[in-house]
Amino acid sequence: MLGEQELMSVPGLSEETVRHIVQEEIERAAARDQAVRSAAFIASKGTLDWAYPPLILATTAAASGMDTSVFFTFYGLNIIHKDFERKLKVSPIGNPAMPMPVPMPNFVTGLPGMGPMATHMMKSMFAGKHVATIAELLESARDLDVRLVACQMTMDVFGYSQDDFVDGVEFGGAATYLAAARNAHVTLFV
Amino acid sequence: MLGEQELMSVPGLSEETVRHIVQEEIERAAARDQAVRSAAFIASKGTLDWAYPPLILATTAAASGMDTSVFFTFYGLNIIHKDFERKLKVSPIGNPAMPMPVPMPNFVTGLPGMGPMATHMMKSMFAGKHVATIAELLESARDLDVRLVACQMTMDVFGYSQDDFVDGVEFGGAATYLAAARNAHVTLFV
Amino acid sequence: MLGEQELMSVPGLSEETVRHIVQEEIERAAARDQAVRSAAFIASKGTLDWAYPPLILATTAAASGMDTSVFFTFYGLNIIHKDFERKLKVSPIGNPAMPMPVPMPNFVTGLPGMGPMATHMMKSMFAGKHVATIAELLESARDLDVRLVACQMTMDVFGYSQDDFVDGVEFGGAATYLAAARNAHVTLFV
Repeated sequence: MLGEQELMSVPGLSEETVRHIVQEEIERAAARDQAVRSAAFIASKGTLDWAYPPLILATTAAASGMDTSVFFTFYGLNIIHKDFERKLKVSPIGNPAMPMPVPMPNFVTGLPGMGPMATHMMKSMFAGKHVATIAELLESARDLDVRLVACQMTMDVFGYSQDDFVDGVEFGGAATYLAAARNAHVTLFV
Repeated sequence: MLGEQELMSVPGLSEETVRHIVQEEIERAAARDQAVRSAAFIASKGTLDWAYPPLILATTAAASGMDTSVFFTFYGLNIIHKDFERKLKVSPIGNPAMPMPVPMPNFVTGLPGMGPMATHMMKSMFAGKHVATIAELLESARDLDVRLVACQMTMDVFGYSQDDFVDGVEFGGAATYLAAARNAHVTLFV
Repeated sequence: MLGEQELMSVPGLSEETVRHIVQEEIERAAARDQAVRSAAFIASKGTLDWAYPPLILATTAAASGMDTSVFFTFYGLNIIHKDFERKLKVSPIGNPAMPMPVPMPNFVTGLPGMGPMATHMMKSMFAGKHVATIAELLESARDLDVRLVACQMTMDVFGYSQDDFVDGVEFGGAATYLAAARNAHVTLFV
């Protein structure tokens, strides 16, 4: 409710003028809308191929000015582990969609040596097309102020300590993720 | 359009006062914004490890006062099947990110007995850290009024009937999910 | 700021009337809210089973009047490849949740011939319940003006050219996806 004084002060505005003011203010509020400018990703997979999508999406979002965070949970903790270069592998097994130089039956892809070959092949394919490496994407993410949050619960379950992770990582839980995601339009579970 | 009478009734408000009222009402509308307080998850995987994320996220969201639903589809129907304790297994095959007590080549993880061992190992790891079991998470979800919706189409495809599922489950389709998700900021496909 | 003339024109509105106008305009703005009527999906998996969810969700969303797009990336490029009928297979390996006619240990599901059998079985299960085929879902998506966008970066990495894809596909990157997703409530990574 407004004071007596304000009600008296001026001759007044027409309905048309009031509607115009209102529409202007709504447009301004929409332009300030945090959700349009925020993205909250979850990275839950720990293989080389699935490390790319959350990091590429997050750095692209942040580069366009969006408030961006990535929550690393379950196998996704591999991505920010200090030893990620060795931990992020790719398996051709159980993924008939993975392009192999030569089609191979599953009992062959399961043989020793096929996993390392697939991992090496994927790294070469990405490097050959000048796609940033995981190390470079992590570096970009930090430069662009992407919040990197490690899931404390799955860290405990898998026996990781805070020292196991790269610099700049925060620690939190599902509630930390949801606090960011509820104010973001872009929310993706990778 | 307003009636003649209303237009005559008072001396009028200044533009500044009108803008103040408008900003107040916009703030109130934003505080009522359903989307900020709603989460709509899809649970599509049927293994023990992937049963945790949708249930942990959904119960955490509901506990913080959000309107929350989980749509169970494809292999995710396993999670709410009456026989979920037996159906939810974990496979070390094709997932080089899965922590194993000893690193093993894929042809070993494919041998009989390795699947049950991995399932048992994961249950122990979670129990050892006092993480709620799937049974406890389902119980919490119901207590917190999380809507649990089974996908009727994939039920038909996989040959399930409504009696196959735990109490409190609703039945619907992609349209049911989208009706909830279009009014929610947090929408995740697990 | 409004002109002198407008400020003079009428006797003025009461605070109550102004609040009423404001609430009316906010409701109208909410009804126009693009985000409630938009869905932006990512299809990243290249197997038959995971081709269904993005196409079923996208066609259902579009059929209900939502602005809908699907961004095909990584293995998901298989879904819109001209040769998708042959490329989309399903693997029983490493997915203990996949219903099999007879339970089989993993070393059996890895034998030659089990992949084609699982693929054939899944196609029969869906056809038996009159679920649309992938070809029919792609046709519907185009009829309903679902935007189908192929990820140029992963096309380059996997060695695909624009001619490899079905008609009606656009080409773009992570920024293309995010431009759609930031204005949509429904954003899912399948």
